[in-house]
Amino acid sequence: MNDKRNLFYAQSGGVTSVINATACGVIETARQNPDRIGNVFAGRNGIVGALREELIDTGKESAETIAALRHTPGGAFGSVRYKLKSVVESAAEYQRLIEVFRAHDIGTFIYNGGGDSMDTANKVSQVARSMDYPLTCLGVPKTVDNDLPITDTCPGFGSVAKYVAISTLEAGIDVASMPQTKVFILEVMGRHAGWIAAASGLAAENRDGPPHIILFPEITFDEDRFVDEVRATVERAGGCVIVASEGVRRADGSFVAESGVKDAFGHAQLGGVAPHLAEVVRGRLGYKFHWAVADYLQRAARHIASAVDVEQAYAMGKAAVEMALDGVHGKLPIIVRLSDDPYRWEVGEADLDQVANVEKKMPAEYITDDGYGITAACRAYLSPLIQGEDYPPYENGLPRYAKPRNVLAASKLPAWQG
Amino acid sequence: MNDKRNLFYAQSGGVTSVINATACGVIETARQNPDRIGNVFAGRNGIVGALREELIDTGKESAETIAALRHTPGGAFGSVRYKLKSVVESAAEYQRLIEVFRAHDIGTFIYNGGGDSMDTANKVSQVARSMDYPLTCLGVPKTVDNDLPITDTCPGFGSVAKYVAISTLEAGIDVASMPQTKVFILEVMGRHAGWIAAASGLAAENRDGPPHIILFPEITFDEDRFVDEVRATVERAGGCVIVASEGVRRADGSFVAESGVKDAFGHAQLGGVAPHLAEVVRGRLGYKFHWAVADYLQRAARHIASAVDVEQAYAMGKAAVEMALDGVHGKLPIIVRLSDDPYRWEVGEADLDQVANVEKKMPAEYITDDGYGITAACRAYLSPLIQGEDYPPYENGLPRYAKPRNVLAASKLPAWQG
Repeated sequence: MNDKRNLFYAQSGGVTSVINATACGVIETARQNPDRIGNVFAGRNGIVGALREELIDTGKESAETIAALRHTPGGAFGSVRYKLKSVVESAAEYQRLIEVFRAHDIGTFIYNGGGDSMDTANKVSQVARSMDYPLTCLGVPKTVDNDLPITDTCPGFGSVAKYVAISTLEAGIDVASMPQTKVFILEVMGRHAGWIAAASGLAAENRDGPPHIILFPEITFDEDRFVDEVRATVERAGGCVIVASEGVRRADGSFVAESGVKDAFGHAQLGGVAPHLAEVVRGRLGYKFHWAVADYLQRAARHIASAVDVEQAYAMGKAAVEMALDGVHGKLPIIVRLSDDPYRWEVGEADLDQVANVEKKMPAEYITDDGYGITAACRAYLSPLIQGEDYPPYENGLPRYAKPRNVLAASKLPAWQG
Repeated sequence: MNDKRNLFYAQSGGVTSVINATACGVIETARQNPDRIGNVFAGRNGIVGALREELIDTGKESAETIAALRHTPGGAFGSVRYKLKSVVESAAEYQRLIEVFRAHDIGTFIYNGGGDSMDTANKVSQVARSMDYPLTCLGVPKTVDNDLPITDTCPGFGSVAKYVAISTLEAGIDVASMPQTKVFILEVMGRHAGWIAAASGLAAENRDGPPHIILFPEITFDEDRFVDEVRATVERAGGCVIVASEGVRRADGSFVAESGVKDAFGHAQLGGVAPHLAEVVRGRLGYKFHWAVADYLQRAARHIASAVDVEQAYAMGKAAVEMALDGVHGKLPIIVRLSDDPYRWEVGEADLDQVANVEKKMPAEYITDDGYGITAACRAYLSPLIQGEDYPPYENGLPRYAKPRNVLAASKLPAWQG
């Protein structure tokens, strides 16, 4: 009886360079099962697309366009930072979602996002049951921050890790060429967890190779200690390459640089740690410095995506559809590590509520005692995730990224008054 | 009689992702002429290495290491920002240079740099002649800024152009996925000439595709006009991607963001245009924004170098040695464009003093009338320079860059008292 009902897929939160590989995995796997799954609709701008009944009809896209999603960064159907609250507080929204799903005969809901989104998928599942609407709800992990528990890693992280490691390696070589530039600071993402900053440590061959100092959100920033470490590094190694998480905090809990803006989830918008640290270096040490802020470049850098990451992102989307076909509900596919070297992994499963709203920070044993570097255990964990180069095709000197038409399905309900 | 004398090569100023490809061209071509050229010495940290008699003996490097320089960013032998003044003011330095050259039987001096360095090479040539020291002086063009006259382009520029165009394309796709982020600002290099910022325009397929606004040093920054343009773009296109040269100036001549630091050439150290513009956007428009500063990442990004640029960088180094063998003196090899599409070019020659101290800015016909975009003529010029992807080899997920041993030749003179 569930046969031939439609599938709804939505992307949530900050996009990654491989979230469209997951979308590709979802849509291609659904298309390979035409006797079991009808059409795949994608939310225009994530879950908000369902609320507004703006459902992108992916059936209107060619097989070539869908295949090209595998190598296209960003969120092909649009994403959004929008958190549904509790079932009581946001009752009207949850009911609207189910009404839209009913109007378009959605039998499967696949939500591609981080911890917040797994929470939402879980609540949608509960509401559907309470409304007697048959709906298979599944999550698919995604976040550059790598902060979901249980899964070995999150699709999106491996590619930003590779970008940050390569950028640190390259900038480190550049700085070493310029004897007058003593300090280089690279600011990377990572609000609460230092995984991305940690990945820069893969560029270091030894303690005197860049990066010399990594600043993690997990370690309280002490300006005096930092200044001493920069001075000692410059005197020892001739220069100092610093990689700083955007989420580095002082002992009083304040971010080293806050922009004062908050997003829809209530998170402070960060940025500006690098120029702040540069001011500290100039004011207290007088060294010539340079600084860079990677921001969106790091998570959009599909041109240097990790092949392992792309493969896992696709596999997660494929697995979610296969789980739905197997009648699995309220879960998400995860990556299970079998061995570090050679890296072997398989697809596993976890309950949505195991993953929802839990932030996986860097464990203490991954950070060196001085708080400024990564340990061998951390390298053993991270290194497999950046292996392989999955280059996009090029045309006229630039990557040829997919441009889906994003045709909306005809609406069947009154406009949403949300 | 000049047979078997040695060659001295030095890198000057900011390094690029392909200056080592030029070094590779110099050294490999010299090695192919063992009956005419002795050893190749490289200045440790550029011309300062000659003054200090710190001459790297490249004869100690394996053929594999030299070949790997072709795909290695940064300056393999160290560069420096150090400008010799006039022959009168810096007489002692010029004389010291010639003494070092005499001590090591240097018959050819090849200086790889920008306009300042071509000027230095020219002066060294004059001093050598006045001191009756037989020395063939040649320059090789290098600068990410693309601001040398006469040559079609400067090795180093095509790769930073490719990096900036790809980064803008990717960030633009990312921003388009995030309906809440209205403005993204990318700050790129370009102190006086807007060539690098212009290259971001290659990412745009039409006027409603990113980048929507390019800010050139050649165009006076008018904050009110800028704010109006950002607002109009957000209202029309849903978001606005801005690429800003670090060298953007106000009507009074001040840089939009000056760090207050000056380098050895007396140039102000810039940085911080992007966060400044972000503040303007927030304060006057209230839009949610993100910003990135590429800084060294852009010029070190050998992982996505332009194949055309790498080929030209190597060809320039090769040509300089061949010119020396042909008895050419006081000149530099240049790139001569024969056609845009298909791009055809050949190696030409120019006099050092034609290139020295002249900055080639963006011509008016390359900038759209509103001052915020590039014209079709500009695209026709730029596009050939980013063609092809010259990927480095990878090992364990990271590029395998060369690590020359950089063994110094035994010194023969008293220490320099400069």
